[in-house]
Amino acid sequence: MTEDQDKYDNLLEQLQELPEEKAPPALREEINRLHPSEIADLLESLPGKQRDNVWDLIDPELEGDVLVHVQDAVRSGRLEQMAPEKLAEVAEALDTDDAVDLLQDLPEPMVDEVLQSMDAQNRARLATVLSYPEDTAGGLMNVDAITVRAEVELDVVLRYLRVRGELPEKTDNLIVVDRNNSYLGMLPLENILTQPPERTVGEVMIDVEPITVDRPAREVAIMFEQRDLLSAPVVDAAGSLLGRITVDDVVDVIVDRGDQSLMSMAGLDPSDDLFEPVLESARRRAIWLGVNLATAFVAAWVIGRFEATISQLVALAILMPVVASMGGIAGSQTLTLVIRGLALGHVSFANARSLLYKELSVSIINACIWALVVGCIAYFWFDNAPLGVVLGMAMIVNLLTAALSGLAIPLVLKQLQIDPALAGGVVLTTVTDVVGFTAFLGLATIFLV
Amino acid sequence: MTEDQDKYDNLLEQLQELPEEKAPPALREEINRLHPSEIADLLESLPGKQRDNVWDLIDPELEGDVLVHVQDAVRSGRLEQMAPEKLAEVAEALDTDDAVDLLQDLPEPMVDEVLQSMDAQNRARLATVLSYPEDTAGGLMNVDAITVRAEVELDVVLRYLRVRGELPEKTDNLIVVDRNNSYLGMLPLENILTQPPERTVGEVMIDVEPITVDRPAREVAIMFEQRDLLSAPVVDAAGSLLGRITVDDVVDVIVDRGDQSLMSMAGLDPSDDLFEPVLESARRRAIWLGVNLATAFVAAWVIGRFEATISQLVALAILMPVVASMGGIAGSQTLTLVIRGLALGHVSFANARSLLYKELSVSIINACIWALVVGCIAYFWFDNAPLGVVLGMAMIVNLLTAALSGLAIPLVLKQLQIDPALAGGVVLTTVTDVVGFTAFLGLATIFLV
Repeated sequence: MTEDQDKYDNLLEQLQELPEEKAPPALREEINRLHPSEIADLLESLPGKQRDNVWDLIDPELEGDVLVHVQDAVRSGRLEQMAPEKLAEVAEALDTDDAVDLLQDLPEPMVDEVLQSMDAQNRARLATVLSYPEDTAGGLMNVDAITVRAEVELDVVLRYLRVRGELPEKTDNLIVVDRNNSYLGMLPLENILTQPPERTVGEVMIDVEPITVDRPAREVAIMFEQRDLLSAPVVDAAGSLLGRITVDDVVDVIVDRGDQSLMSMAGLDPSDDLFEPVLESARRRAIWLGVNLATAFVAAWVIGRFEATISQLVALAILMPVVASMGGIAGSQTLTLVIRGLALGHVSFANARSLLYKELSVSIINACIWALVVGCIAYFWFDNAPLGVVLGMAMIVNLLTAALSGLAIPLVLKQLQIDPALAGGVVLTTVTDVVGFTAFLGLATIFLV
Repeated sequence: MTEDQDKYDNLLEQLQELPEEKAPPALREEINRLHPSEIADLLESLPGKQRDNVWDLIDPELEGDVLVHVQDAVRSGRLEQMAPEKLAEVAEALDTDDAVDLLQDLPEPMVDEVLQSMDAQNRARLATVLSYPEDTAGGLMNVDAITVRAEVELDVVLRYLRVRGELPEKTDNLIVVDRNNSYLGMLPLENILTQPPERTVGEVMIDVEPITVDRPAREVAIMFEQRDLLSAPVVDAAGSLLGRITVDDVVDVIVDRGDQSLMSMAGLDPSDDLFEPVLESARRRAIWLGVNLATAFVAAWVIGRFEATISQLVALAILMPVVASMGGIAGSQTLTLVIRGLALGHVSFANARSLLYKELSVSIINACIWALVVGCIAYFWFDNAPLGVVLGMAMIVNLLTAALSGLAIPLVLKQLQIDPALAGGVVLTTVTDVVGFTAFLGLATIFLV
């Protein structure tokens, strides 16, 4: 543990035991000295009751910035308790993209109310961005870019900036457009500073590929990552400038993407609140458990088909979970590899055959090794050589099935527009359970009893 | 699928069928028109043989940039085939931090050879950064920051920059230091442009908290994320300026972190190559399968203790996997939630009690619901009411155990400095299997036979 984490944990512990009536002024001060994102972290790490108490300790002028940094689930609960005028005030103090993030979580009529409480300019600015889906370039962009014309001299730009006095947050480029607002290129601040003042904007601007407004956020993130961009212009289909996306907003998309696969594979939602109300959490998980219960009963039904065989040789009941579980483990290795490859765009039907060849080869080697091992263990444990052979054979069948399913299932699910991370594991386990039990008990029925 | 992905898949397909002797010039051109990071993606998406073929098509001056973008595993294979002089040439053309990334993958003696082939200035620059561990602020930083003194007027800075002509990549701030190179603050390019030229650097610089050089990369990433930073200064323990970290390098850390938990939970390494050589891949996975096999046999041994009971009532063998698998599913939901919480710093012993209370409450609700459901199913299936009751009771025991273990196991593993994502699932499954089988078969032994 580092010093910072220690300090944080210490504060967290104090806040959990916060007396209901009145917090010591020192604690209130300590909280408001934190960065808004750190306050947001504290809120997320506390259960509902204490969360309310801590919220009351936050300085009103920090509230907006804190709200921008908390998770969706925590935020929407908080927003619904605020008056529209208060919300409008908070939203006006934020960058467009941050304000939009806040408003997107509200019910439609409330958004309208908040917009009505704003001045016309802010309202127009927000309404533009709100009209694009949250998970596209349009939903990520800021509309506060400073534009310049190509024929202007740098000297003029410099004078203009000095009069203006302040640039929108995270401005690293001015954006060059023609008289119709068509995007032409980017003018890095660096070039204004380092190039001779008599040159024109058009001479020193750089060529940055613009992002069309309907591009999915996922692809915008990959583009920023791959090209190490700090910002990029957003245009409509005709090439007119609409806004700009900055890297800090893309970082949020990347962070969410990383969590997405992990959480989905356990049937969870990445935006879930750690301290979600118990009933809500129980309801969501009940669905997941129900789906998995259904697959468990499919497996049980398969076993039931071999009731007579098992009753003649109980050793089968003892060993059968080994076959199924090894299939599940091996399959989820391939599955995870493919799910990540799909998320990064590295796996598709185009290279599926090469990948199948590799995964099957790996699987054959491991199948042979572990079939031998489990076969020997079964032989010595139950002093029954044919039982060992049958167990080994079932293991080989199931590990090959696992490799094949681990690759095929996510590809097919993706084709069907179903999230492979969410459904892949359930389908895979069903396959490896059914094949594992059938192979082992079936072979046993033929050769052993 | 978007248009871009389609184009990419199309190219990927062509490259897989590349004739060995000679690629068509059109294909060579198409590849070299891509961004280096896109070429890197192509390489990662191809198996070994075709990867070599595509590598031969890449323009030599693009090679360095492509290497910076490929995964560690792919890169090191490629680097070892290059001559030290060639490597030195490639490394000199890159930013310090990118060059360091390349060299860190090489064996020590080769690094020395490469450094010897460089000019003194480049060598000194690289050696500084190489002396810090890869996963700390020092390993992430660039040493090419432009420094200015606080007492200088902006006008002078402006003239200096114009003479200099070009700034290091991703420069959004100059760094303000005193005569002893102690860090004082940051001077955003924006302020040079917008503030009156007669003001001094000290008057318009901003206060940015510096990062100490030994700070873990993980914490640097959280800081950049939380505070929406584009760059930050790096200092030693005494406060002397050593370099700067830019957001693009931090994005890489964030991307890796997202993959880390996902891949570790399946016993994979995030830096694994999708088309790793078969034998190498088989060896790594064999270890993981072996560990899981051991736990499967622990479960089998538990079942074996109840051989006599099962032989009297084969329905037990049919239903027992249901208890174990539901425990595993419920447990891994809590486990995943906690593993992510630990990675983000939201879960610690400080709020473990509150979280335990919530997870146990959720678990009790679900345990009661599903115990009732499975109990009824078992009753109707086998026409045996006591069997249904025993199954339901075992389910309740195992779901509560799952919630408790899902929370406790990762916290304890973390305390023992073992990666909870890697080992958590194995330990959890062992616990839910053992408890599930023992509860169900044990209760059956007492009440049913």
